[in-house]
Amino acid sequence: MRSHTYIDSLGSARMMARALDGKALAKEIKDELKIKIHNWINAGHRAPSLRCIIVGQDPASHTYVKNKIAAATEIGIEAQTIKYDATLTEEALIAAIELLNNDKTVDGILVQLPLPNSIDERRVCNAVAPEKDVDGFHITNVGQLCLDMPTIVPATALAVIEMLKRFKIDTFGRNAVVVGRSKNVGLPIAMMLHSDKNHDSGLGMDATVTICHRHTPPAQLELHCRNADIIITATEVVKVAGAVTPVPGGVGPMTVAMLMHNTFQAAQKIWQQ
Amino acid sequence: MRSHTYIDSLGSARMMARALDGKALAKEIKDELKIKIHNWINAGHRAPSLRCIIVGQDPASHTYVKNKIAAATEIGIEAQTIKYDATLTEEALIAAIELLNNDKTVDGILVQLPLPNSIDERRVCNAVAPEKDVDGFHITNVGQLCLDMPTIVPATALAVIEMLKRFKIDTFGRNAVVVGRSKNVGLPIAMMLHSDKNHDSGLGMDATVTICHRHTPPAQLELHCRNADIIITATEVVKVAGAVTPVPGGVGPMTVAMLMHNTFQAAQKIWQQ
Repeated sequence: MRSHTYIDSLGSARMMARALDGKALAKEIKDELKIKIHNWINAGHRAPSLRCIIVGQDPASHTYVKNKIAAATEIGIEAQTIKYDATLTEEALIAAIELLNNDKTVDGILVQLPLPNSIDERRVCNAVAPEKDVDGFHITNVGQLCLDMPTIVPATALAVIEMLKRFKIDTFGRNAVVVGRSKNVGLPIAMMLHSDKNHDSGLGMDATVTICHRHTPPAQLELHCRNADIIITATEVVKVAGAVTPVPGGVGPMTVAMLMHNTFQAAQKIWQQ
Repeated sequence: MRSHTYIDSLGSARMMARALDGKALAKEIKDELKIKIHNWINAGHRAPSLRCIIVGQDPASHTYVKNKIAAATEIGIEAQTIKYDATLTEEALIAAIELLNNDKTVDGILVQLPLPNSIDERRVCNAVAPEKDVDGFHITNVGQLCLDMPTIVPATALAVIEMLKRFKIDTFGRNAVVVGRSKNVGLPIAMMLHSDKNHDSGLGMDATVTICHRHTPPAQLELHCRNADIIITATEVVKVAGAVTPVPGGVGPMTVAMLMHNTFQAAQKIWQQ
């Protein structure tokens, strides 16, 4: 078996005996952002601003949004939550988003998912102006990512790539397995891992990438993982013989940190326009 | 070694001893389209229309465009070539595209690549209205493909998927290797092969997909190919021990046929709007 790096994008990462500490890295990135934002404001700009829209009363969603607002505020981003009842119509939500799209004091817009069943999530994601879409879910941002163009990348996927980079894990020509084909996590990770690092996005990792998913037979999944240098799973823990053990609490804090990165990036780009 | 299907997307395909005859299948698809377009016109619609823009004198490009126009005309698509000197500016080309975007008698617009070095191909591809972009190169069409939404798919990639379907090659949970990560061929093929067949596009194939490319070490490429049920290469011939031999002339005619499919699809969608 090859020695390999294992990142659980809902959980954690270890490289053989060496743990990839996502929590400590998230703090490092937020500390860096805090200084950059401080300098940005000192240079005469207004604070970057983020609006989190939440519809309904799902407790987990409210906790996620609270964590995002706290992280933003901590590093100097002006952040507000906009709460709506679950009875909100799709049209009213889109009208609210359009107001924020046109608000020159707003840089980042985030609509916490899931939305009530009566609302079409895809339509809502595409209603956010692409340059303010800090979740990277808009069709234009997805298309740009796949074309290796500068774009806004979904935060969890960006967190995984940033961990690989910061922990100096060699990906060039290596075998990487991505378990899970979700559009927000598995797919964008596979996009960045396999693509050319010399292209405009600067996110390419030049790995050979295998995308496994629910229909991959277990024996084949094991075979791909045994031959992998890097294994990234967006699903529940995958058993790989020996060597690697996932631990909870790795990529979560990194996702919030990269969302802040996306917000500051959006603020800078909007200012440049 | 597994028995596997091999498709060379610039060339041909064989499944073990059984040859996948792209030329015959292309004729079959064009014959089907001819009947559908005949019925469409008989139902009172104008003929679907295609405009092929070509800039400069590259002989290969002129041959490709000629073949496309001939295929279109043969099946009842009203097709015209629009020729410009290599001295054409990017702005003038984009202005010409915008005229066609706004022309209600035009369904499909194709800009033959490559363009002269003075012109930004990405900007030109994005200037074509997404609903008339029969090459499927616009960011919006790429994003839609990656999100499993109905879209226009680049013709060569669609040709490969159509061949797999028409030759009833089972892909569900199988190992597929795509050699080459080009944005027009390798990438869209990998997108369709790995994705969920129950999603809206109807193009998902549910295979486990490995994307190999120039930085995949030869020994690893061989290993991935040996374990593959299906091998698709958008690059030069890859040597796989025994069993499969590529033959020239397979996907080329299919690409033209699928471009005609895209044009008729565009005409129908534009009429529905």
